[in-house]
Amino acid sequence: MISRFDFGSPIDTGAVVRQLPVSGGSVPYFALSREDHALCFTLDLAQDDIIFGLGEANRGINKRGHLYASWNIDDGLHTESKNSLYASHNFLLFFSKDRTFGAFFDDPGRITFDLGYTKTDEARIISENGDLSLYILESESLGAIAGDLRRLTGSSYLPPKWAFGYIQSRWGYKSEEDVRRIVSEHRRRHIPLDGVCMDIDYMDDYMDFTVDPAGFDDLHRFCGEMAEAHAHMIPIIDAGIKEKKGYEVCDEGLENGYFCTYEDGTPFVGAVWPGRSYFPDFLREDVRAWFGAKYHRLLDAGVDGFWNDMNEPALFYSENGIRKAFAQAERMKDMNVGIHEFFHLREVFADMANSPDDYKSFYQTIGRRRIRHDKVHNLYGAFMTRAAAEGMAAHNPDRRNLLFARSSYIGAHRYGGVWQGDNHSWWSHILLNLKMLPSLNMCGFLYTGADIGGFNGDATEDLLLRWLQLGVFTPLMRNHSCQGTREQEIYRFSLQNQMRDIVTVRYALIPYLYSEFMKAALSGGCMFRPLAFDYPDDETACRVEDQVMLGGQCMIAPVYQQNARGRYVYLPEDMLLVRFRSASDYDCFPLEAGHHWIELELHEMPLFIRRGCVIPLSRGGQWVDAVDSTDLTLLGWIGSDASYMFYDDDGLSTQVGLKDGLTEIAVKSNAQGTQAFGEGLTLHAGRLITD
Amino acid sequence: MISRFDFGSPIDTGAVVRQLPVSGGSVPYFALSREDHALCFTLDLAQDDIIFGLGEANRGINKRGHLYASWNIDDGLHTESKNSLYASHNFLLFFSKDRTFGAFFDDPGRITFDLGYTKTDEARIISENGDLSLYILESESLGAIAGDLRRLTGSSYLPPKWAFGYIQSRWGYKSEEDVRRIVSEHRRRHIPLDGVCMDIDYMDDYMDFTVDPAGFDDLHRFCGEMAEAHAHMIPIIDAGIKEKKGYEVCDEGLENGYFCTYEDGTPFVGAVWPGRSYFPDFLREDVRAWFGAKYHRLLDAGVDGFWNDMNEPALFYSENGIRKAFAQAERMKDMNVGIHEFFHLREVFADMANSPDDYKSFYQTIGRRRIRHDKVHNLYGAFMTRAAAEGMAAHNPDRRNLLFARSSYIGAHRYGGVWQGDNHSWWSHILLNLKMLPSLNMCGFLYTGADIGGFNGDATEDLLLRWLQLGVFTPLMRNHSCQGTREQEIYRFSLQNQMRDIVTVRYALIPYLYSEFMKAALSGGCMFRPLAFDYPDDETACRVEDQVMLGGQCMIAPVYQQNARGRYVYLPEDMLLVRFRSASDYDCFPLEAGHHWIELELHEMPLFIRRGCVIPLSRGGQWVDAVDSTDLTLLGWIGSDASYMFYDDDGLSTQVGLKDGLTEIAVKSNAQGTQAFGEGLTLHAGRLITD
Repeated sequence: MISRFDFGSPIDTGAVVRQLPVSGGSVPYFALSREDHALCFTLDLAQDDIIFGLGEANRGINKRGHLYASWNIDDGLHTESKNSLYASHNFLLFFSKDRTFGAFFDDPGRITFDLGYTKTDEARIISENGDLSLYILESESLGAIAGDLRRLTGSSYLPPKWAFGYIQSRWGYKSEEDVRRIVSEHRRRHIPLDGVCMDIDYMDDYMDFTVDPAGFDDLHRFCGEMAEAHAHMIPIIDAGIKEKKGYEVCDEGLENGYFCTYEDGTPFVGAVWPGRSYFPDFLREDVRAWFGAKYHRLLDAGVDGFWNDMNEPALFYSENGIRKAFAQAERMKDMNVGIHEFFHLREVFADMANSPDDYKSFYQTIGRRRIRHDKVHNLYGAFMTRAAAEGMAAHNPDRRNLLFARSSYIGAHRYGGVWQGDNHSWWSHILLNLKMLPSLNMCGFLYTGADIGGFNGDATEDLLLRWLQLGVFTPLMRNHSCQGTREQEIYRFSLQNQMRDIVTVRYALIPYLYSEFMKAALSGGCMFRPLAFDYPDDETACRVEDQVMLGGQCMIAPVYQQNARGRYVYLPEDMLLVRFRSASDYDCFPLEAGHHWIELELHEMPLFIRRGCVIPLSRGGQWVDAVDSTDLTLLGWIGSDASYMFYDDDGLSTQVGLKDGLTEIAVKSNAQGTQAFGEGLTLHAGRLITD
Repeated sequence: MISRFDFGSPIDTGAVVRQLPVSGGSVPYFALSREDHALCFTLDLAQDDIIFGLGEANRGINKRGHLYASWNIDDGLHTESKNSLYASHNFLLFFSKDRTFGAFFDDPGRITFDLGYTKTDEARIISENGDLSLYILESESLGAIAGDLRRLTGSSYLPPKWAFGYIQSRWGYKSEEDVRRIVSEHRRRHIPLDGVCMDIDYMDDYMDFTVDPAGFDDLHRFCGEMAEAHAHMIPIIDAGIKEKKGYEVCDEGLENGYFCTYEDGTPFVGAVWPGRSYFPDFLREDVRAWFGAKYHRLLDAGVDGFWNDMNEPALFYSENGIRKAFAQAERMKDMNVGIHEFFHLREVFADMANSPDDYKSFYQTIGRRRIRHDKVHNLYGAFMTRAAAEGMAAHNPDRRNLLFARSSYIGAHRYGGVWQGDNHSWWSHILLNLKMLPSLNMCGFLYTGADIGGFNGDATEDLLLRWLQLGVFTPLMRNHSCQGTREQEIYRFSLQNQMRDIVTVRYALIPYLYSEFMKAALSGGCMFRPLAFDYPDDETACRVEDQVMLGGQCMIAPVYQQNARGRYVYLPEDMLLVRFRSASDYDCFPLEAGHHWIELELHEMPLFIRRGCVIPLSRGGQWVDAVDSTDLTLLGWIGSDASYMFYDDDGLSTQVGLKDGLTEIAVKSNAQGTQAFGEGLTLHAGRLITD
């Protein structure tokens, strides 16, 4: 059951696809209070209450005990202190033996989630806008509630199948030659690869929808060449449009008034990579149609996907901000600068980026309402993604394209995926990567992954190898890093063979991962779940923070500590440990429910398959299209019977349905041996362990 | 065996107290190479090599796999990326089945320790000075090597016994009234307490050895009042001396040429809390004598200890640095600032603090040699500590005083303790706190602890409670936090009773902790050790990163994850788990060697006692002097016999010897029951578990 409660004048965020009547009753669970304009929802927490949700957010799978703020921000230092990241996913699941419900705060402004931070036994959720719709979701289980949210907010984005391949990326590939070398180095070393991301350097002076002629003299020809090497090109598109006469996007935007404006109606200027820039008002349908159509020229050139970046929107500085800083420096330059003035001045320079004042200085239009940006701040990235998705659909409605973005809001999950932002080459960020998976899935974002190896900072090879062992399972499996950091393509490292072997596991698993992804997407389910979704009565399982359920059959538990040669794992039920070294080199160990120490050398990664389940493993391939999804080896620990509902399709068409894609794989075991059947499939049951 | 190798013209750092002849042979283990002036020591690493050491450093107990730099720095953001903290402890222990040795690089300039970071199988240690003594230490065990280092570098500092009490601190206590309230709030709630730290606000305008008359109109009277409440006052002393005519310390320093100087001989000026400041040249004996004597006036007023801060030395900015920044802003203010210029400008302001150029701009004097500061940078804090310790010894040679510092170098362990620097209210910093304990102990620093609850950032009450559960064991047990953060005195929180109960465990353990500390200090041992010291043949134990050995009888393993209700623990041998809720409320569980999941509710903390060992527990008290160390309950899991060598003394005298303080506690168990004997002790054996 979903109940809707409206407060003030809710802004239409586009998150909801099913318009519900406003409930006449009072809001359950929460006590309400107003503080000036802000609206505060208060809830007592019992000692055992767990809180899931918030999608792409910091800290635990269980969000309890800290403070979070929905305020999309370009801040690349994800320490434990950070309350806001790039996205705002205002969905919470309160869970205990006595009370389980969901709450979606559909409000695009700043919301503070004090989840037992100020007071251990109290949650306080404060909407600064005070204008919002609150949806209370009640159902028989955590999974059912997450499913209800999906029905309320629409089905998740479907990427093409090749987007499950390994993608190499780095801010620093400047030319055809750079990209060509990346692809060829992977190919000649037999490191599987499906795509290369083109970061901001491919553009001409950071102008969206242009290509630097010095680096890429004929993108169409080059995309063709790369397609022959089975490598997809994935350029970046940033939110800001360079202020430059003669630059078509700028000129058209100005002529048609497509950009966000100051209060006086003149276009707002903020500085990002191209320097002084304008920001398309993506909340307007006409602006989205115009901007979305710009993607066509790159699609026509042969690219197969995009990543939308800087769309919080990031602002390095504004005209106002930098003038203020200079004025401050000017005032102080002849003073005997005291300590406190010094710190103030340093902060003026440091805090210029993403300044709250700047976000209050410009306006957008939603419907017929002109609204100050900060009131709808968290929608900017979501509607840029929508613009891109609608543009691509207009280009070819029958073909799925890859699209993922940095900034998002619930609703954007219908249009594209998200990567988990500009993380660091930190071991703790492997764990953060893992924790975000179930949280994002609950909020509808199924196609996701983190920058493997870490974006900021320098990766060590053991870090990259361990991170790849998690990345094997994330739908988006991208190795990405920042200019100026240590180069982190697999082949840069002495352990490249071990890394390559781990990537082969990914390709062996593609039939299974794609099957589980599509089943989740088409049925409104979660591919990744906290253990509590599957074992709500197991108190130990419910509090596990470093293992997550994958699909209907598996649990994952990566190693995320340097120099570790194993890790502890809690099994809520009997499971089969598969310890992979490569697609073809692995051991299987049946393990009983309970606590286990699992030995895992640096080149070994675990997968846990629930007893009674089977999963299919292909022979892998050097790219996704080379993976034969009809020739499958089954893994599992079963009794006499088992089955798996296997989903597959052409990987590209938008016209897909769950039923059309399903094939039942049935396993029967008796004294004569074990046999498996599946229509159109060649199945090898030799790796099944039977009781 | 210790072998000494000299390179270039080693600088006398004061680290070594036993002058060894220079070895004639070639350096074992390392290959040497020169890169310009720098000297590089290279060593191949086998897959199983573990590297311990580096004292107060970031990341693991096992340092392998990352890059560290000895370069003392005031940087309060201890993320995984940070290579340098406040101290430089250039001692490494290489450990594997085939090769175990120690290496002490006695060099006060910048040293880079690339311990399998660039290449997984290679350690490269680079001395920028190229002038150093290298000591290679070889012995039969890790503990013996660490003991040899102590014999080489001298015995560890002995604090007074009261310094093992709970100490409350915060940057923000401004007056007698503030401090009085802190003490009375603890007393009336029966939260044990022994001292309060006075941070920079007690001073008059941040001038060392002055007292703000507005806050403290009669420090002598106030210290007397606090002494009646059994609370010791512990003021801070910073390195920088305010440039101010009429301020005695400044005037005397200028008159006598006691400050560090620019190349031209005029005094160097850098800005710290008091604004423009001078920096005493602590490397000079006459300067130390002068500065050390300044502590007398505060000792005369009744304070019982000091903490020395800002002695890396921290530099917020220099005259040169700020002029350069202003000039840069001036040049750019009328430009159309491009992105790259903007980032450059922002960096100019951000990087002004602790700038390498500034450290190259002034000079110190060591012996008769004038030397550029950067060549001896890492000694500054150590010699300030020495100045303070020598000053206090001159004041009263028979009395131990509390002294701990932020910055240090091996050698300073003879003069004072260290706190682990300006950490954060992060769960990961509970673990970092734990990891530093054995590393610091190896390098001689026994009296240490971290800012419990975290200095920077806002603590949640569960974080503070869990952190106290580790702090119970650290010799320095100080709750400290930064101005502007959430107040984190225990009584601010709803869980204050549980926190208080945990502090009572500390007081119950004081006889044992003091005994183990003094035994380690007087015998050249380590109170805290990696498990590898005690179980070198247990490969699992050797790689444990979140448990450490405490004294001869115990192992500790704190919970350091939010919302956790237990943790995994590896027992290398049978141990007795004592699960404490308070000094008087605890359970004992005999556990077999192996992996265990231990249930630990938020208010419960574990201690593991080796089978066959006993430890004494007192009834506790509200301050250390109230703890009766002669009335002891014994805890342990024993056979028929057991014994414990208990050390105690008057807690204040400097004239102490190991033998004089030891009393044997002997336990005998038979069919008639269990009895314990110890001269002068009342022993309760009721809590002993016998086979």
